[in-house]
Amino acid sequence: MAENRFAKRMWHASSNAIREILKVTERPDVISFAGGLPAPSSFPVETINRIAGEILTADGCRCLQYGTTEGYWPLREAIANWVKVKGIETSPDQVLVLSGSQQGLDLMGKAFLDAGDRVIVEEPAYLAALQIFRSYEADLIPVKGDEEGYDPEALEAALKEHQPKFIYLVSTFHNPTGITYSVERRQKVAELAAKYDCYVIEDDPYGDLRYSGERVPALQTFNPERVVYLGSFSKIIAPGLRTGYAVVNNPEIRQKLVIGKQGADVHTSNLSQRIVQRFLAEGLLPGHIETICQDYKAKRDLMLESLEEHFPAGAKWVKPDGGLFLWVTLPEDISAIDVFPRAVEEKVAFVPGAYFFAQGGGENTLRLNFSNATFEQLQTGCARLGKVLKEFLD
Amino acid sequence: MAENRFAKRMWHASSNAIREILKVTERPDVISFAGGLPAPSSFPVETINRIAGEILTADGCRCLQYGTTEGYWPLREAIANWVKVKGIETSPDQVLVLSGSQQGLDLMGKAFLDAGDRVIVEEPAYLAALQIFRSYEADLIPVKGDEEGYDPEALEAALKEHQPKFIYLVSTFHNPTGITYSVERRQKVAELAAKYDCYVIEDDPYGDLRYSGERVPALQTFNPERVVYLGSFSKIIAPGLRTGYAVVNNPEIRQKLVIGKQGADVHTSNLSQRIVQRFLAEGLLPGHIETICQDYKAKRDLMLESLEEHFPAGAKWVKPDGGLFLWVTLPEDISAIDVFPRAVEEKVAFVPGAYFFAQGGGENTLRLNFSNATFEQLQTGCARLGKVLKEFLD
Repeated sequence: MAENRFAKRMWHASSNAIREILKVTERPDVISFAGGLPAPSSFPVETINRIAGEILTADGCRCLQYGTTEGYWPLREAIANWVKVKGIETSPDQVLVLSGSQQGLDLMGKAFLDAGDRVIVEEPAYLAALQIFRSYEADLIPVKGDEEGYDPEALEAALKEHQPKFIYLVSTFHNPTGITYSVERRQKVAELAAKYDCYVIEDDPYGDLRYSGERVPALQTFNPERVVYLGSFSKIIAPGLRTGYAVVNNPEIRQKLVIGKQGADVHTSNLSQRIVQRFLAEGLLPGHIETICQDYKAKRDLMLESLEEHFPAGAKWVKPDGGLFLWVTLPEDISAIDVFPRAVEEKVAFVPGAYFFAQGGGENTLRLNFSNATFEQLQTGCARLGKVLKEFLD
Repeated sequence: MAENRFAKRMWHASSNAIREILKVTERPDVISFAGGLPAPSSFPVETINRIAGEILTADGCRCLQYGTTEGYWPLREAIANWVKVKGIETSPDQVLVLSGSQQGLDLMGKAFLDAGDRVIVEEPAYLAALQIFRSYEADLIPVKGDEEGYDPEALEAALKEHQPKFIYLVSTFHNPTGITYSVERRQKVAELAAKYDCYVIEDDPYGDLRYSGERVPALQTFNPERVVYLGSFSKIIAPGLRTGYAVVNNPEIRQKLVIGKQGADVHTSNLSQRIVQRFLAEGLLPGHIETICQDYKAKRDLMLESLEEHFPAGAKWVKPDGGLFLWVTLPEDISAIDVFPRAVEEKVAFVPGAYFFAQGGGENTLRLNFSNATFEQLQTGCARLGKVLKEFLD
């Protein structure tokens, strides 16, 4: 079957590289730092079990019937209340429930992107976002940044030159780099979006997982109309429920997202929505996040120690204040893509950083996840990887 | 905000008309024959409650973790086994789990449709399918049919003239008309698809709900490579779980659908998938479908009787062998769109048939749902609607 039987958007579409890597690393003897999986021990299984029983007993028929595309109203209320911790003041009708926050990227692409439209993306950027925007045949314009986010001058130059439909970013505990946009930089991005009349997608699946430093208000708070905020319960309740949300204060954008979601999946699983709603309404989330953060902080710190101990002198990394990832930079002449197969032989896996670059580069970088492994695996895996890297450095 | 800020696909996109009508008819005093909702009494609430508890107790952590895009393997196995009742012989790796079978329409659009590509659709056709294919900027080519499905000569003429990417159809207990493709017509469509080198989407969310007549093998069985089969658990277990499936024997098409779903929602809710898997694995589905069919058969028959009793002589309808809908044709000079507001005043609602026509027409038709109302509502609602129709006929 000839490739050109398919839509153009599919001609060069490949399966998500990370998901393919994950398949390789599913062998039980491989210690994987590759995925972005939460620790299964962080899932509130007993609470969800109790809540599911209560919901199905009290209101099973309505829970199992079709629902509205916008989402279960009490969940939209609970989310509008929850996002206050991020500094966001909104109302339930401006909240849309999504089947995972990633669905928001797809719906924004569907709403805004014609072939040849431009989207500004970070360099490096979240891989699935790049693939989603490409699937709408958009031109991706990578813009460099530093440990505070997009470089303001480079961003302004790109906005001027390319007139993008929107700017995409992960504002807090970035995937893959772990960085967090400073308050000043958030303000600046919001300002530039207004000045050049474009929109911003603030993707924030990790922002609640802070282990050090002070909370920063959501970028959306600096321009509520221009910024679409995407949030997730995957890392703070459970990804298997596929429940995220968008805060969309602009009614026209919101309407387009709803039309897109009607066609995509009609609505998000009502059982998932009601479980999350009850979890929020019972006030369990702050305490649960605290428990997760204690665990992940210890894991982050142990991985940092283990890198210090086992990695060769030429490797560098930055300590992130939260999230799930450490970003490692190797000497320029070493390719993490070359290291990968050798690492898998030694039964340890990671994601080569080059996959996160929209237009090439970053061969000497790699991403390590510290949330999913056990403490012992963190130490053993870093020792294994350090040994392999030393081979390459010698 | 100017409409042209959005992607072209959104410029003329409106919210699904039926979903808008449903909002109007949510007033509790209105008897609604408008939606396509299953009866809440048909949901196996207690069984799902028990199963959810067992799953979360036994395997909660894995159930709440991320899963693979293709779906939970034991569910794919159970579906491969289940579709044997439709005459389909397949293997689990050819089954994809979807977040409702409608997601399959969106993913097929994403895989195949560039702007200006052609899709053959029935006249009338399932409304959401028309909207989804339009969202990929496809040209819809409506082809007339009769009570056995597409008219073979008209279909061949359209295939010759328009070289469509695929043919879309609802093979059994059609939405909105209630018709079922005959064996000969299924064979013919499969033959023509092969002859003109195009694909077929067999959308079959209602096929398990048969109240009279003999089961017909799935259209896919007449050409397993060319036909993508979409099935659903929304009408036979519960729509709120958002779980459907595709049987896709062509590996290239399957790969494109998986890539599309990775971007759309990563995977379907694992809790939903595992509930459906256990329901199937415990062998509960055939008995449960029998119970639903007894109820819906009685409702269909009561609605037919009530139409006979209350509707004016000029109205005609066909008795469907299954599904959820009766399709009514009024005299040519009466518009069901004009009847609608008057009917809502009399506290009864339906869907004007014109909405199901891709290129206009069908003003004198309307769709009635009989699954969601109670027996009393069926009688009262038909009496109310008959009274309104008589006003228009006088």
